[in-house]
Amino acid sequence: MYTPKGFLFSTVEAAIKKAGRKDLAIIYSEREAVMAGMFTKNKIKAAPVRLDIKRIKRGIGQAIIVNSGNANACNGRQGMKDAIEMTELTARALGLKPNSVYVCSTGVIGTPMPMDRIRPKIMELVNNLGKSNIEDVAASIMTTDTFPKAVSKKINIDGKRIVISGICKGAGMICPNMATMLCFILTDINIERSLLNRALKFAVQNSFNKITVDGDMSTNDTVLIMANGMAGNKPIIEERSNSAEYRKFSETLYEVTYELSKMIVKDGEGATKIIEIEVKNAKNDRDAEKAAFAIANSMLVKTALYGNDANWGRIMAALGYCNISIKEEKVDISLNNVSVVKGGVGTGMDKEANKRLKGNEVKVMVDLNLGKGYSKVLTCDLTEDYVRINAEYRT
Amino acid sequence: MYTPKGFLFSTVEAAIKKAGRKDLAIIYSEREAVMAGMFTKNKIKAAPVRLDIKRIKRGIGQAIIVNSGNANACNGRQGMKDAIEMTELTARALGLKPNSVYVCSTGVIGTPMPMDRIRPKIMELVNNLGKSNIEDVAASIMTTDTFPKAVSKKINIDGKRIVISGICKGAGMICPNMATMLCFILTDINIERSLLNRALKFAVQNSFNKITVDGDMSTNDTVLIMANGMAGNKPIIEERSNSAEYRKFSETLYEVTYELSKMIVKDGEGATKIIEIEVKNAKNDRDAEKAAFAIANSMLVKTALYGNDANWGRIMAALGYCNISIKEEKVDISLNNVSVVKGGVGTGMDKEANKRLKGNEVKVMVDLNLGKGYSKVLTCDLTEDYVRINAEYRT
Repeated sequence: MYTPKGFLFSTVEAAIKKAGRKDLAIIYSEREAVMAGMFTKNKIKAAPVRLDIKRIKRGIGQAIIVNSGNANACNGRQGMKDAIEMTELTARALGLKPNSVYVCSTGVIGTPMPMDRIRPKIMELVNNLGKSNIEDVAASIMTTDTFPKAVSKKINIDGKRIVISGICKGAGMICPNMATMLCFILTDINIERSLLNRALKFAVQNSFNKITVDGDMSTNDTVLIMANGMAGNKPIIEERSNSAEYRKFSETLYEVTYELSKMIVKDGEGATKIIEIEVKNAKNDRDAEKAAFAIANSMLVKTALYGNDANWGRIMAALGYCNISIKEEKVDISLNNVSVVKGGVGTGMDKEANKRLKGNEVKVMVDLNLGKGYSKVLTCDLTEDYVRINAEYRT
Repeated sequence: MYTPKGFLFSTVEAAIKKAGRKDLAIIYSEREAVMAGMFTKNKIKAAPVRLDIKRIKRGIGQAIIVNSGNANACNGRQGMKDAIEMTELTARALGLKPNSVYVCSTGVIGTPMPMDRIRPKIMELVNNLGKSNIEDVAASIMTTDTFPKAVSKKINIDGKRIVISGICKGAGMICPNMATMLCFILTDINIERSLLNRALKFAVQNSFNKITVDGDMSTNDTVLIMANGMAGNKPIIEERSNSAEYRKFSETLYEVTYELSKMIVKDGEGATKIIEIEVKNAKNDRDAEKAAFAIANSMLVKTALYGNDANWGRIMAALGYCNISIKEEKVDISLNNVSVVKGGVGTGMDKEANKRLKGNEVKVMVDLNLGKGYSKVLTCDLTEDYVRINAEYRT
């Protein structure tokens, strides 16, 4: 992992859900950063999400405080008071104004924040800034995740080395928009806010918003990006929005988010397989996306693939009910490159396909042979362990 | 079980999927019956569904041939040829015209019908008419069902005893419209076709179309009703559509379908609990229904209830993403009559609610406190066994 210039990290154990693991962290930029954010479209938004949505309007900030173990969602007015207090205490300890501090929470919904345990830890966090690295933060924000998720890339702009590092968490309640639960991206590039925003939207739209684990959309999903300019490149401003430099940044940012989103799917609760669903030649892109998500969210498709069963009838059924333009007699389907449906009819190759499904990666390719619409969605299989994890989550 | 006058049944083992169980049946009315039908809205329709949709336009018929073990879906032109041939052979054996015979199939998708095994059995079926009863037919149409589903009621109209008997099957791929997979309702009432149609629509809309097991809609769902008039009541015609007699019939038909639909949910693949979700005081009925189905189809809600966990945060999350009008601070939720959310905030009664969830019936009540919209939906929990059954279905 590369670390962008000027960012410091700190993690601590605050026993927010249970003792024995780091669950509170601060990300701090030595210099005020340009920021952009994207948030859950769920109408029930956690208090920290509502607060960050307000603060991101200024487009600047210098610190993020984040906890796992409690989502601070559905906690009424007290929830908002607690979220604000977390930013105020952090701001005071860092010598910042509260509106330069963002707060994110992830964990169970509807349990009051244990502020008595959080308050005393904030000064400790600030005192220890620099003693943790970005991967420690990635570990501290895990809930049902089984591994920390971090990706880092460097590019060269104007002869300066620019680093983009991202971390995220999220293994269940994963569906657009967004699919992340929490993601923080830090970079030292010098870029104008409007362009940072545009690049983030493009990246998220093509990564986190194209994955699904269970079709459930969280109340807390947040992506925040901070760009502190400390790499020292010539500022990338609107006049340079068509430049090779902007495109290089935007594409690399997308790669970071795509790799992170793939990690989320790979770590989907109980998952044993990562499933890539491509729908091509739909009437239009929207139809392609609807079809891809219908297949990705079908419990019957997900369980069949878990069982190495090329049960393409369930894919046909999903194509039929997702309300897109379709001609049954034109549909082709392949599973891991074995053609199982040609012109709407089985090819008799199911046994061959069953064999090919036995790995941990599945490619479902659907050709509707109608138009030019295209979409690609990532998901995972549905296993007994998903049920077990989610039946026991709070117990 | 009561049997309506003039109906005869026959079942046989044709080894359509595997040997050792009855899988082919005929329902025959001695007198030509008025008929109505409702069918899957899936755009990928099995061949027998497409054939029946055409034939039901005449509104009359005299026999149904039905098989389990093979859905005859996605079998291209051969599938339609086979469906037609099944009706032709049945018609010839019964001395009827082919368009008086309906055909239904349920089972795996995309496997050619084993016509060589079906053909020789049809004459045997006809010869044995009367040797089976309606419950035998219910047993012969089972796939992953664990028990046969049959309901029968009698009413008195014009001093005549009228019987309405229904059977159905369906345990997975259950979602409107329809939720049945297959349902046959037989009655000896004398009723005009338009009224039979209206009564069926009302009944199905409030029963099969209000249940969901897994959110997947089948390619084969069919409800057929036959009314042969042999009870001898004064015909119920359009002029009597507001009469007590029509209402009595319509309500009893609804009761039959409601009880059948409840059996389907109870028998949901792997289910341990039946879950009734009521949403009241939504902005309108449509919002209420969207909310009820979002909760019913949430894998996270279904697994939590399986684990006796009053994890209402997942219900709030579903309410937030289902795209209805909602005010978080107005939402009340109770689980088996324990208030867990009041005004959008947890009441702290989760432990009490956990205890009350330990039975096999769960009532989820959501009050949005916004308007007068109402909906009630039935579903079941999601268990490891659902995954196991569907991962192994074809193996």
